[in-house]
Amino acid sequence: MNFKIIFRIIGFLLMLTGIFMMLGIPFSIYYKSDDISALLQSGIFTSAVGLIIWFFTRDPENKELGKREGYLIVTLGWLSMALFGSIPFMLYGAVPNFTDAFFETMSGFTTTGATILTDIEVVPAGLLFWRSLTQWLGGMGIIVLSLAILPILGIGGMQLFAAEVPGITKDKLHPRVRETAKRLWGIYVIFTFTEMILLLIGGMNLFDAINHSLTTMATGGFSTKNANTAYFTSPFIQYVFIVFMLLAGMNFTIHYLAFHGRFEFTKINTEFRFYIFFIAIVTIVVAVIHLAHVNFNIEESFRQALFHVTSLVTTTGYVSSDYENWAPFSRMFFFILLFIGACAGSTGGGIKFARHYLLIKNSSLELKRLIHPRAIIPVRFNGKAVSADIILNVQAFFIFYIGITVLGSIILSFFGLDFITAAGAVSTCIGNVGPGIGAVGPLNNFADLPDMVKWILSFFMLLGRLELFTVLLIFTPAFWKS
Amino acid sequence: MNFKIIFRIIGFLLMLTGIFMMLGIPFSIYYKSDDISALLQSGIFTSAVGLIIWFFTRDPENKELGKREGYLIVTLGWLSMALFGSIPFMLYGAVPNFTDAFFETMSGFTTTGATILTDIEVVPAGLLFWRSLTQWLGGMGIIVLSLAILPILGIGGMQLFAAEVPGITKDKLHPRVRETAKRLWGIYVIFTFTEMILLLIGGMNLFDAINHSLTTMATGGFSTKNANTAYFTSPFIQYVFIVFMLLAGMNFTIHYLAFHGRFEFTKINTEFRFYIFFIAIVTIVVAVIHLAHVNFNIEESFRQALFHVTSLVTTTGYVSSDYENWAPFSRMFFFILLFIGACAGSTGGGIKFARHYLLIKNSSLELKRLIHPRAIIPVRFNGKAVSADIILNVQAFFIFYIGITVLGSIILSFFGLDFITAAGAVSTCIGNVGPGIGAVGPLNNFADLPDMVKWILSFFMLLGRLELFTVLLIFTPAFWKS
Repeated sequence: MNFKIIFRIIGFLLMLTGIFMMLGIPFSIYYKSDDISALLQSGIFTSAVGLIIWFFTRDPENKELGKREGYLIVTLGWLSMALFGSIPFMLYGAVPNFTDAFFETMSGFTTTGATILTDIEVVPAGLLFWRSLTQWLGGMGIIVLSLAILPILGIGGMQLFAAEVPGITKDKLHPRVRETAKRLWGIYVIFTFTEMILLLIGGMNLFDAINHSLTTMATGGFSTKNANTAYFTSPFIQYVFIVFMLLAGMNFTIHYLAFHGRFEFTKINTEFRFYIFFIAIVTIVVAVIHLAHVNFNIEESFRQALFHVTSLVTTTGYVSSDYENWAPFSRMFFFILLFIGACAGSTGGGIKFARHYLLIKNSSLELKRLIHPRAIIPVRFNGKAVSADIILNVQAFFIFYIGITVLGSIILSFFGLDFITAAGAVSTCIGNVGPGIGAVGPLNNFADLPDMVKWILSFFMLLGRLELFTVLLIFTPAFWKS
Repeated sequence: MNFKIIFRIIGFLLMLTGIFMMLGIPFSIYYKSDDISALLQSGIFTSAVGLIIWFFTRDPENKELGKREGYLIVTLGWLSMALFGSIPFMLYGAVPNFTDAFFETMSGFTTTGATILTDIEVVPAGLLFWRSLTQWLGGMGIIVLSLAILPILGIGGMQLFAAEVPGITKDKLHPRVRETAKRLWGIYVIFTFTEMILLLIGGMNLFDAINHSLTTMATGGFSTKNANTAYFTSPFIQYVFIVFMLLAGMNFTIHYLAFHGRFEFTKINTEFRFYIFFIAIVTIVVAVIHLAHVNFNIEESFRQALFHVTSLVTTTGYVSSDYENWAPFSRMFFFILLFIGACAGSTGGGIKFARHYLLIKNSSLELKRLIHPRAIIPVRFNGKAVSADIILNVQAFFIFYIGITVLGSIILSFFGLDFITAAGAVSTCIGNVGPGIGAVGPLNNFADLPDMVKWILSFFMLLGRLELFTVLLIFTPAFWKS
């Protein structure tokens, strides 16, 4: 294991994290809030730690980066950013408890959006901006991770999505990753900026518009308001949220190609079509539920349905009403949506449409294979046959996902959480959604859970965000032996 | 499709079913109950219908039985036995409603044990015997199905268990099936008889001993008492139940070999070892829960824990106390146990230990494969490498199982069932266990559910019992085309 280069990269990440922390200071100055010194001190401290690590790991004799180094960098990178990122919250005293501060920051960097803050609106502007920025940075990280790094590491079928953007190849992590990153981040920044402009046009103030465009594009779900997005009742603003959640939940390769005038790709992209189809169908079902049980206005029912389906499916987790009580069965319905996940190569978390598609398709083809045992019947994805290796890999991912969720629910129930709250909390955290069901439902938050439960849930957020394998591998003896 | 031979076999099954119905008459005579004519009429009618079908399908020009005929015979066989088997209940008036009678009989033949009877003890002896006998016959059917027929049909990895008993080969359904059936049924009868003797020694009366030995060996769970097995408070009787549930949940191949003095097989049988290991560990956990929350007697806590773990894991579904309220987390705990299932080749239902083993093992090996992408790392089962085909097949089974359970829970919640009751009802029915959680928990029954829900649950029992694929295949266009 080449620890020197691993720590060098972590050091670099921490330097950046520290600089980003201080970006909230202009807001503190403008709003005359008293969090300037907390942000400044945390920022300088984090950057300094990063610089020291960077300095002591200079001139590595071996510059090679293998797969195993890749897994460690990704996991340790996210972990150390969440650790240092929590300092401003503690230093200012907005979240004095380390457990809570870590939970909140991990929820940010993993773009989950579960919060332990009971009164968000008392938190000063600079800190709130930092809170939103953790999500945006996490989203930025995940785009590159899922489209450039994970495919090379062979995680859960992600290799299916590589080689679609010019510049991404399966062979070399470096230097193509840098090129890919630049292109995808360009799109990410353009989208964020466009959303901000539209939110301003919709009447939102600049600070809220900036924060919400950061957390929408990251499919994060943090808000500057206690009522979350329910605070913004303008239909225009809600539609802006919907459109940008949908964009954020799509594979960024599609955006890249669209920016180059190549729209034909949407026609052959299996996952994109499944994504649109699924959201359309489920929205219609939910709109009918809403019409029948809550509200008789067709446009509003459609909007509410589309908003919540999009919010949960893209794993954003914005909440604009208490969907849990729409109808007796809406709790079950919205719980299931926690297990969908957006598209691979998006900022969204969860199982992802590509995997669901492969699993459903392969299982239904298995029926065909039973009738024609000698025929070779492969799953087709984006017009190409998918190898058995990838199917096995995706199925293993799904089984881990379900197994870990079940195990987590059992563990949480040992801490006294009721069945529904335990299952809801684990599912929403591993899926990086945000709100759960039961006592962690859309109108509640995670503040009252026992400390140990918050640590476990933080771990689940990281696990889900890094597509399970990246983290789990590190705990296997084989990882350290070879 | 060779319909003539399919119906000929169904006709034969119905003839047998009719004859078996009348076996309860001696009990009716002895207990002077008034169900004699109901049993006699139903039995004669069923046999007559069977005989007519048998007569009109004589001399089939084509005697060949293909796979597709196999799937249809199995599904239609179970379905028609449940249809005709419900006649005595309706004719006597014990269950006047067709929906309820069908649910109860399907619950019997699938060895599920979910009941709609609110007062079992008023049902006359002959009918009660018939009710227990449906389970025993279902169990008999399932042993042969899982060890001789399904492996040939290639269902969900069941081919792993073929060729272990002399007389079972993968090639021919006929005439080896008959030979295998005889040997396995001999063991089944011996076990049932031995349990009956032991229950008599434990102080049970002959009628109860017969009924309970029939439903134990079938991992069925029907009882002649309203309180189910909680009626029998003798520790000796409870231990007898435990031992025979454990035996019934084991692969009957192991019993076959043991009867021939070949005990070495238990040493290399992966599933058997996993089964014993799992039950031991979970029993210890549950015993500690029981000790801490319910009762401070070590022996009784151990016995209660072992009883319920064995009862749920083997999918028997006997209930000896309200385990749901032992501790805040016991509801979650016992819910998860509904998804385990006994061993393949037993009378138990559910996902089965063999599949769980393959899934867990393959997923953990996937981590190893990520580190050594060029190495071929197969799952080993019973000392042999398992092919990727079988893993894919088992994974497809698991995904179908989970998918269908989720879909069923959503559908049931549309009928107004709460989250926990809906999930519990579907899981216990597809797993052929019996009691669920929530409003269909260990102390409740299925009587109050809407009719449509009972039909859906009946379908789920059949689906689970026939390892999903057997039934699902019939609904695919490919099945009918080729």
